[in-house]
Amino acid sequence: MKIVDLQFEESVSTYIKPLHIANEIAAEATNIRVSLLTDSGITGKGEASPSFRVNGESVPALMALRAQILEEVKGMSVLSYMLIFDVMDRFSSSSSSLKLAIQYAVVDAFCQHTGIKPYQFFGGRKEYVETDKTVSIGSLEETIADVEAIVSEGFNVVKMKVGEDLQRDIERVVSVSDRFRNISLIVDANTGYTAKEAVFFADALYRERCPVVLLEQPVPVHDLDGLKLVRQKAQLPVGADECVRTRYDAFRLVKNDCVDFINVKLMKSGLSDALAIIEIARSANISLMIGCMCESGYGISQSVHFAAGTGAFVYHDLDSHMLLRNTGPVGFDQRGAKLFVTGPGS
Amino acid sequence: MKIVDLQFEESVSTYIKPLHIANEIAAEATNIRVSLLTDSGITGKGEASPSFRVNGESVPALMALRAQILEEVKGMSVLSYMLIFDVMDRFSSSSSSLKLAIQYAVVDAFCQHTGIKPYQFFGGRKEYVETDKTVSIGSLEETIADVEAIVSEGFNVVKMKVGEDLQRDIERVVSVSDRFRNISLIVDANTGYTAKEAVFFADALYRERCPVVLLEQPVPVHDLDGLKLVRQKAQLPVGADECVRTRYDAFRLVKNDCVDFINVKLMKSGLSDALAIIEIARSANISLMIGCMCESGYGISQSVHFAAGTGAFVYHDLDSHMLLRNTGPVGFDQRGAKLFVTGPGS
Repeated sequence: MKIVDLQFEESVSTYIKPLHIANEIAAEATNIRVSLLTDSGITGKGEASPSFRVNGESVPALMALRAQILEEVKGMSVLSYMLIFDVMDRFSSSSSSLKLAIQYAVVDAFCQHTGIKPYQFFGGRKEYVETDKTVSIGSLEETIADVEAIVSEGFNVVKMKVGEDLQRDIERVVSVSDRFRNISLIVDANTGYTAKEAVFFADALYRERCPVVLLEQPVPVHDLDGLKLVRQKAQLPVGADECVRTRYDAFRLVKNDCVDFINVKLMKSGLSDALAIIEIARSANISLMIGCMCESGYGISQSVHFAAGTGAFVYHDLDSHMLLRNTGPVGFDQRGAKLFVTGPGS
Repeated sequence: MKIVDLQFEESVSTYIKPLHIANEIAAEATNIRVSLLTDSGITGKGEASPSFRVNGESVPALMALRAQILEEVKGMSVLSYMLIFDVMDRFSSSSSSLKLAIQYAVVDAFCQHTGIKPYQFFGGRKEYVETDKTVSIGSLEETIADVEAIVSEGFNVVKMKVGEDLQRDIERVVSVSDRFRNISLIVDANTGYTAKEAVFFADALYRERCPVVLLEQPVPVHDLDGLKLVRQKAQLPVGADECVRTRYDAFRLVKNDCVDFINVKLMKSGLSDALAIIEIARSANISLMIGCMCESGYGISQSVHFAAGTGAFVYHDLDSHMLLRNTGPVGFDQRGAKLFVTGPGS
């Protein structure tokens, strides 16, 4: 089970409808498929979904790392998986999605060798998870129409992007709340507010009894004091996304009482730090959700297996394969909002 | 891989020389061997080494839990190992060594089924660890003779029990330090000091340049403020043992800056909490050692595989099989101070 080669392949997908979040609109996504070849003939596969905004990643820079990473992992055994995790941890700061792709490919190869599925490697706690679906920033009419469609598709949790215009954000969330009574809302400001704006926003939604279960990343990444203030003043659960990539980020936030929730994304943390964040959060009674970048169906399967196996997440925002063209489930089956780690007959 | 039955068997061993720690002398040890039978014919094995002093455990009480635990885990699949871990987590407060034995038996069965060794399940970081050996509380002459023997057997780290008599403790540690220049010393007070005594003790050893690498559990379990004070005043690294059993204990100590080191013992934490403590410690730059209760050779192999696989520990105090009669290594090979997860030819 020794690694003999590594292959990287770029893959471009376009959004069915451009994704509009605070201060950014995305029309397409480029992912990197990693194949990790072993001397036993088993090939492990992983997908990186790079993000410049969150991780500082660029696709050409990641592609250019192939030779260096191969040199470091060549000859290592997939059965000593943590040693390979350690090698990739050194790429955390600027190449975390590639770190994930390699780490996941190792687990994939380990699982093929041992005859188990990845969700069993991760603990086998569940066989499916339920995902939300995301609504871009848009006009009130667009927002209502988008939520209407999402609800009719069977989703019970809707994630609304906010953070560009406080008054319009409140109006959009309150309108959706008035119109759709049986859904749960995650509102994600993607760093778009000041602390006081975020408190004002949370207050307004709370007073209007909006079914908001989580306010994600209200303030900029490095404003931990601001995040703590929002957490303490807001009646709604407050979560961190962009400001938690490593275990060290998570520990600092938790130690300083800054959050109720952490949004774990494999593309920010890789498997190694995601596993650590789960243990830290559980030890501190902090809740977790799992999110995604722009993964294809295969990339999302990584998070489906991880989330099902660990059973660690209250909410699952694993919808990018639905927002992109031509990237259906691979490695999981979808029935409405539910993502199953195995097909019906398997 | 479904669980169909569970068998418990008591096993008594006597100490070659009674083990004298602060306020307790032990002459024999009773362990419980657990066999977990699955419907595929694979039997997983684990050993519990109960401790009344640390865990509040008594052997008859643990033996009496067999029917209840079997009822809870019967029919569960070993491949969904975290679900079985979760069941056993509910036994943390009063039966943590039994929790470990069941959790380890699950891993043992998982590994037999998948054709890997337990140290690979835990990450495969190393194939051996180096252990210390322990010196009881005793007269100066006895102590010197014991250390002499330990050093001649090839051990580089010696663990000295202290905590009953401050002045004599200092005298013993200083004498050993003067006489044996090339060893590292772990001094373990087993809760025997007040905070101010511990600081005085640490000061004396530091001034005499004793090669003490760790002062373990200087103060009583619930005196976290005292522990923090010792940590802040002492120039030596200060560790917690008896006061860390669960992930919650570890998180509280680390959050409140009470320790430099944590002594993880599988018998206090089981696999589930031990894994969490590793992640917390690494995230907070806290160091770890691994210790033991009174495990036999098989029980110690559990910690050897865990410590080698996770590669998480600076010091290893895995010597109980050497202190007890007729309990040689099972599942590992010993060469001097080194404990190998696999034999030379395998």
